[in-house]
Amino acid sequence: MHKLVLMRHGQSTWNLENRFTGWTDVDLTDQGREEARLGGQLIREAGLTFDVAHTSVLKRAIRTLWIALDELDLMWIPVHRSWRLNERHYGNLQGLNKAETAEQHGDDQVKIWRRSYDIPPPPLPDGDARLPHSDRRYAGVDAADLPKTEALKHTVDRFLPYWNDTIVPEIQAGRRVLICAHGNSLRALVKHLDGISNEDIVELNIPTGIPLVYELNESLKPTKSYYLGDAEAAKKAADAVAKQAGGK
Amino acid sequence: MHKLVLMRHGQSTWNLENRFTGWTDVDLTDQGREEARLGGQLIREAGLTFDVAHTSVLKRAIRTLWIALDELDLMWIPVHRSWRLNERHYGNLQGLNKAETAEQHGDDQVKIWRRSYDIPPPPLPDGDARLPHSDRRYAGVDAADLPKTEALKHTVDRFLPYWNDTIVPEIQAGRRVLICAHGNSLRALVKHLDGISNEDIVELNIPTGIPLVYELNESLKPTKSYYLGDAEAAKKAADAVAKQAGGK
Repeated sequence: MHKLVLMRHGQSTWNLENRFTGWTDVDLTDQGREEARLGGQLIREAGLTFDVAHTSVLKRAIRTLWIALDELDLMWIPVHRSWRLNERHYGNLQGLNKAETAEQHGDDQVKIWRRSYDIPPPPLPDGDARLPHSDRRYAGVDAADLPKTEALKHTVDRFLPYWNDTIVPEIQAGRRVLICAHGNSLRALVKHLDGISNEDIVELNIPTGIPLVYELNESLKPTKSYYLGDAEAAKKAADAVAKQAGGK
Repeated sequence: MHKLVLMRHGQSTWNLENRFTGWTDVDLTDQGREEARLGGQLIREAGLTFDVAHTSVLKRAIRTLWIALDELDLMWIPVHRSWRLNERHYGNLQGLNKAETAEQHGDDQVKIWRRSYDIPPPPLPDGDARLPHSDRRYAGVDAADLPKTEALKHTVDRFLPYWNDTIVPEIQAGRRVLICAHGNSLRALVKHLDGISNEDIVELNIPTGIPLVYELNESLKPTKSYYLGDAEAAKKAADAVAKQAGGK
């Protein structure tokens, strides 16, 4: 039996401002750092440890991981960063807050982009400085793979190869894996593990900073999954996340 | 022409207590963290950036790297940790301070261990809880490769394969490399790059927290090397390090 732990990064500056973040590389707030510390503490108190960790190339996830590893006295374990664990790319909504988005596009349209599985918001226009193609952290990635916008479906599609090719072999080799990532890249994994439908996955909210443990059998099918710590606190945190317009 | 940057971790708690540290995994002091931040700042002000970083599996080096990467807005670059970049293993001296070591072994003997290239201090005894063999961070390393004590010669011998097999190919591929490590693992590299004799290398002191830039030609021979920032400050820092009994 394998144990896999997922952790969603804590509050970022743009979560606080309720802006669509996506691939924008904003940092954690002080509250976000504290969430990360508490998450690490919950893992430690549960007696869990890791052989390897995976995160995105965005600092809010990397810093969450760093803080948790520090708390766990595991700064020495290998850490792998991949753009495939990044948050869903929010296209041209990135940077807009709830009011600005509603003003430009109307509430109904915004709801569609947030709640549909496969309808992406408008892409970043050609020449936009925010295009991943002009950020050197993505220089090693095939340009055709880099999104200008994404629906959750596209996040799932680009996350799964990393899961299958990189993380699954590690788990099968008996390594204990920690994944520290984002609301939608973790949704992608939860959808895959639990076989959640396209309709239901968009309604599932993963709370920030609260470690989610999956117990997997030999075929890597979940036999059990649970949040660490106080169940009530996890629910409250998930509800708080659900109320945000964007900020992912 | 390639640029390679070396950085020695800042003050640790055992530097402060003047204890032989070696592979003991002590943390940075507040001053050590500030040295790391200033080191990162010097690199940024020099307009240098990196594609990849290497460090040891000891938290004083990893944390120094983390702080510098944060300062450089490079938290996203790949980081590789290896035991081959660890500090020289100080054997059974680890944990002793200057007075205790002199009392147990005499000043003359301690000077020999500190200043000879190839005479190691007494090894950790069999069954000692400090043996790397019983630390799971070294579980993947061939037990025959793990030291129970080291002279500088042994640090050089176990560092060079990592340099040749892992770092050299990266530099040759045009990647800009940052190495954040320890007094003696960096001595090993400086000895190799500058062709310093066994006698002279033990007298060479690398200051903490001050980035050391090597400009290398196509054959990876140094054409130039210099510390960033105020030369006087670098000399003072190196002198301060030279005065320490152990604490490496």
